[in-house]
Amino acid sequence: MSTEQLAVDAVRMLSIDAVQQANSGHPGMPMGMADLAVVLWTQFLNVDPDDPEWDDRDRFVLSNGHGSMLLYAMQHLSGFPLSMDDIRNFRQWGYPTAGHPEVEPHLGIEVTTGPLGQGFGMGVGLAMAEEHLRANLGGDLADHFTYGFVSDGDLMEGVAAEAASLAGHLELGRLVYIYDDNNISLVGPTEWTFSEDVPKRFAAYGWHTITVDGHDRPAIAEAIGAARAEEGKPTLISAKTHIGYGSSVQDTAAAHGSPLGEEEIDKVRAHFGWTHPPFEVPEAVYGFMRDAMDRGRQKHGAWQERYDAADITEYSSYFEPVAPAVPTPVYEAGSKVATRKIGGAALNSVAAIRPDLVGGAADLASSTNTIINGSDDFSAGDRAGRNIRFGVREHAMGAIVNGMTIHGGLRAFGATFFQFSDYMRGAVRLGALMGTPSIWVYTHDSVFLGEDGPTHQPIGHMAAMRAIPNLYVVRPGNPAEVAGAWELAMARTEGPTALVLTRQGLPIPENNDPAPVAKGAYVAAAGDAATLIATGSELPLALAAREQLAKQGISLRVVSMPCREAFEAQDGDYRAEVLGAMPRASVEAAVTFGWGDLTGSGGLNIGIDHFGASAPAAVLAEKYGFTPEAVADRIAAWLA
Amino acid sequence: MSTEQLAVDAVRMLSIDAVQQANSGHPGMPMGMADLAVVLWTQFLNVDPDDPEWDDRDRFVLSNGHGSMLLYAMQHLSGFPLSMDDIRNFRQWGYPTAGHPEVEPHLGIEVTTGPLGQGFGMGVGLAMAEEHLRANLGGDLADHFTYGFVSDGDLMEGVAAEAASLAGHLELGRLVYIYDDNNISLVGPTEWTFSEDVPKRFAAYGWHTITVDGHDRPAIAEAIGAARAEEGKPTLISAKTHIGYGSSVQDTAAAHGSPLGEEEIDKVRAHFGWTHPPFEVPEAVYGFMRDAMDRGRQKHGAWQERYDAADITEYSSYFEPVAPAVPTPVYEAGSKVATRKIGGAALNSVAAIRPDLVGGAADLASSTNTIINGSDDFSAGDRAGRNIRFGVREHAMGAIVNGMTIHGGLRAFGATFFQFSDYMRGAVRLGALMGTPSIWVYTHDSVFLGEDGPTHQPIGHMAAMRAIPNLYVVRPGNPAEVAGAWELAMARTEGPTALVLTRQGLPIPENNDPAPVAKGAYVAAAGDAATLIATGSELPLALAAREQLAKQGISLRVVSMPCREAFEAQDGDYRAEVLGAMPRASVEAAVTFGWGDLTGSGGLNIGIDHFGASAPAAVLAEKYGFTPEAVADRIAAWLA
Repeated sequence: MSTEQLAVDAVRMLSIDAVQQANSGHPGMPMGMADLAVVLWTQFLNVDPDDPEWDDRDRFVLSNGHGSMLLYAMQHLSGFPLSMDDIRNFRQWGYPTAGHPEVEPHLGIEVTTGPLGQGFGMGVGLAMAEEHLRANLGGDLADHFTYGFVSDGDLMEGVAAEAASLAGHLELGRLVYIYDDNNISLVGPTEWTFSEDVPKRFAAYGWHTITVDGHDRPAIAEAIGAARAEEGKPTLISAKTHIGYGSSVQDTAAAHGSPLGEEEIDKVRAHFGWTHPPFEVPEAVYGFMRDAMDRGRQKHGAWQERYDAADITEYSSYFEPVAPAVPTPVYEAGSKVATRKIGGAALNSVAAIRPDLVGGAADLASSTNTIINGSDDFSAGDRAGRNIRFGVREHAMGAIVNGMTIHGGLRAFGATFFQFSDYMRGAVRLGALMGTPSIWVYTHDSVFLGEDGPTHQPIGHMAAMRAIPNLYVVRPGNPAEVAGAWELAMARTEGPTALVLTRQGLPIPENNDPAPVAKGAYVAAAGDAATLIATGSELPLALAAREQLAKQGISLRVVSMPCREAFEAQDGDYRAEVLGAMPRASVEAAVTFGWGDLTGSGGLNIGIDHFGASAPAAVLAEKYGFTPEAVADRIAAWLA
Repeated sequence: MSTEQLAVDAVRMLSIDAVQQANSGHPGMPMGMADLAVVLWTQFLNVDPDDPEWDDRDRFVLSNGHGSMLLYAMQHLSGFPLSMDDIRNFRQWGYPTAGHPEVEPHLGIEVTTGPLGQGFGMGVGLAMAEEHLRANLGGDLADHFTYGFVSDGDLMEGVAAEAASLAGHLELGRLVYIYDDNNISLVGPTEWTFSEDVPKRFAAYGWHTITVDGHDRPAIAEAIGAARAEEGKPTLISAKTHIGYGSSVQDTAAAHGSPLGEEEIDKVRAHFGWTHPPFEVPEAVYGFMRDAMDRGRQKHGAWQERYDAADITEYSSYFEPVAPAVPTPVYEAGSKVATRKIGGAALNSVAAIRPDLVGGAADLASSTNTIINGSDDFSAGDRAGRNIRFGVREHAMGAIVNGMTIHGGLRAFGATFFQFSDYMRGAVRLGALMGTPSIWVYTHDSVFLGEDGPTHQPIGHMAAMRAIPNLYVVRPGNPAEVAGAWELAMARTEGPTALVLTRQGLPIPENNDPAPVAKGAYVAAAGDAATLIATGSELPLALAAREQLAKQGISLRVVSMPCREAFEAQDGDYRAEVLGAMPRASVEAAVTFGWGDLTGSGGLNIGIDHFGASAPAAVLAEKYGFTPEAVADRIAAWLA
């Protein structure tokens, strides 16, 4: 038996033994894709187990993340610092060998996957990042491929369909996906649900497609070679594989999501002639796999020489950028300017300082004011452009922005109307889980977008976004807060930030002092009868209501709270000082859900707990009680 | 000029005049699709303006809902009760002519559209409903087509891609979509983002595809005829159209999303030789359009005769079903049973009484326990089956279930893991906005799904779902509550219900009395020191903590709150009585966000405000303080 074959079998045995030990997991996929993985790792993937985070490494994405043991087995055998003890403790508390891969670049786990389709989309983002960096920094310093394994389930997901269409359009020739075409999904044969002609679909998207026997290793190597050679199109290699290869449940859904059982594992051992006990791998396999990594080490060494010889000033501006100070855009006091427009100015202030800032919108660049001035579009013909046109593909935008950001060297943003954050929520949540500092620009943030009506009017979206851990949701209410919001977003390195901006104009205040957005909330106007907390477009409303109440002799304190998460990260003294000991109210043009957390028993929460309507914004403000007079009246009645 | 041409021009002029009057809207699409609409309405669409809600009418979906004026113009001219006053007041408060179509069956507006791709998906559901009803009730009583207009934007959306793949797989031959292939999206030419070969993609899905000049009416009629004749495949007619047809901004994005302006409209008037003032239509056009509706009226008359002659007992069981009483599934007290499993029993109790209940899961039928026993799969070969296999297509499942439910005659459900509710949120939210009583079955509802890890563990999902107006979110904690949850879901007619169920077993209580789930919350165990509100799997936990506290002499009152929305709909007295005047705490294995609304100042909210981890459920319970001892300790410390 060849050492290569021994390595393939080792991957299979490690995977099924670990799943058995954990008493949960997915053995069938690693058994089916082991040949593909061993060929990819030993003959193509240029990575360096001694320095897994080397900037110019090839990227690998396991989009069918339920087959996580395949990745752990490969990284362990290849010499990444992922130990046999980690594998023994697959799916256990405190070990990096989670049920689905969780991003750990130092172990060669590039992204978190499991929710199907996300890995497919992030891989497109990784490939776009490489193209953009290569165009701007040169092939001496940026020159690698992105590989991914994808499954039937991935290909059924809309996020993957969107990303595939864009990848074809952008002619991402260095993106190579291997499709585990095994005819089985979790519950049964794919013929129950999935009878499309996958290669034809991908050809329609503009992909290069190859079909190969996923257990014929020389043919696999040839296919990957051909994929690499086609630099004008992304490649989908449809690899015909047998899920649960070598077991008696091969080619059935029984191999998908449950341990095989000791008895069956014994049979598999016999079938492969595998005589080693669980979690023991012959030295020859380690030698074979680890020696193969020398290709990547040598690439790394050559890259390092070029890096050491280069002027890395520009390189550092991508890979070691500084958090920018964002000046407050200046407008005439008393005029009305939408925060989306102010956001466009702030974004451009950042972009002028930070060449690594790239991004765009899902067919709404002009409406969201998210065009980087003076830069071209990123396209098949121009990889240096910083403006990315995602098309009407919100979910793929989410995954791609996550992928570009997690690649390193870039800070990416994606923009759409706030309502469509629903479409990309899977990606927003995954970015928060990964701790990826993607930036989301959401405009048209309330019913006050007006005539487009309730289909486009966010109501529950502020609350829904605040419910995602590690996502900062920032809704600024004037130019100083918009500048502070962008500054906060750029300063965050451990998680994403959503900027929530108005369609409609807000009055520009006289006072243009910097706002402490990083603290989340602050006293915007003093008062001693009650505290009214406001966000975004309701900040000027609250201040106007305060004027009304002053006429009635009621002294209202207004707290601006552009970012509740940042506020909750402050110390208790600061929070108590800002919220005050007076009765508390809140005003936000959205569901009141969650505001009681801050306003407490007897608090007043002014919001909109129903869907909106199609009408001009001023009419809606009148109907829904979002005028200074109506807010003042409610507060006066509440305090009476 | 032919009256048909006059009608086409009337549609165009009404559309651009209404957009101009509203000073917002999308004129270009109606100008480009007017020929298509007039041919479809006058030669094919079998509807009855005198009885727009006739069960067996053809269904029409305007998936590119931003072109809403096209639909309003068509329905007005065809004699639906949509007046010229409604059109004059396009996008104004109190009128049905919203910026994007909002479901009004009495006006012939079948579904709410605007968020792109949703209409595409709902249309697939409408076609599936027709197939299923025809199979079960016979072609005498169910026999119609589903038509839709779709745009570049629709086809870029993942939800449409998922739905298209499933529609092809299911061979939905009575589904006919006309694609407005105008090469323009909101911000510019589609060549910026969308260069795929659409007909080839749809052919790969198994669709029948036709390409036609969208302004050549005889060719359009021929294409629709050919689409109808192909009953083995859904059809996509790619109609090459000119957005903003006849204006000087024709074929540009300038025609997409802004009023043309008075000056330009004058030019368009001259171009078409249109001499009528705004909002005036020649009688000949009304005559032409309304006479054409006689075809539908006659179909309706013939249907009515068949209906009157038929035994409609079975028909009524679909179209006039009764809300079922759901018995509590019985298990041995003290044993542990997952609420997903109990849910499967309750679902089958309902299904036995309600033949109109159909549905399935996104490749997770066995895990979500959502198989209707004794029924086959709905498939290309068997339309009578009630079990629908959606594949790994959560978002399309959402749109399709909405479509099937809104069709009439069916009550549809869709199931997946709770975490993946993020993927289908666009559809869930739209269903709530439409007031469609779709049922969502979400299992694996917390970190206590265990080893699959944080990618699959919902954390913010309860809060995020509760933030959607008009959605009832029900998280039951024992068999009686599960039965009550299904009963509540089936009794709701004005909006959707999400059932949130555990993967892990919960202890079966001794007491099997019916639970007042419809009231949202109730006192599960008396006490006088404090109230602890619990949901779902935390109900038995709270009761166990109460036992612990009793040993310390602390008398804890436990309130079970399976449905916060239902509770908030109760009168103030009931709510006050349930919540009590004692200090309040809450316990839920999810973010605490929003619980302060109920527990108030000084309240204690026990939750998990961070992502989970991959480990066995019992380990997570220990680590995160979700054991009876830990909960009791926190409450004792809080009360001390």
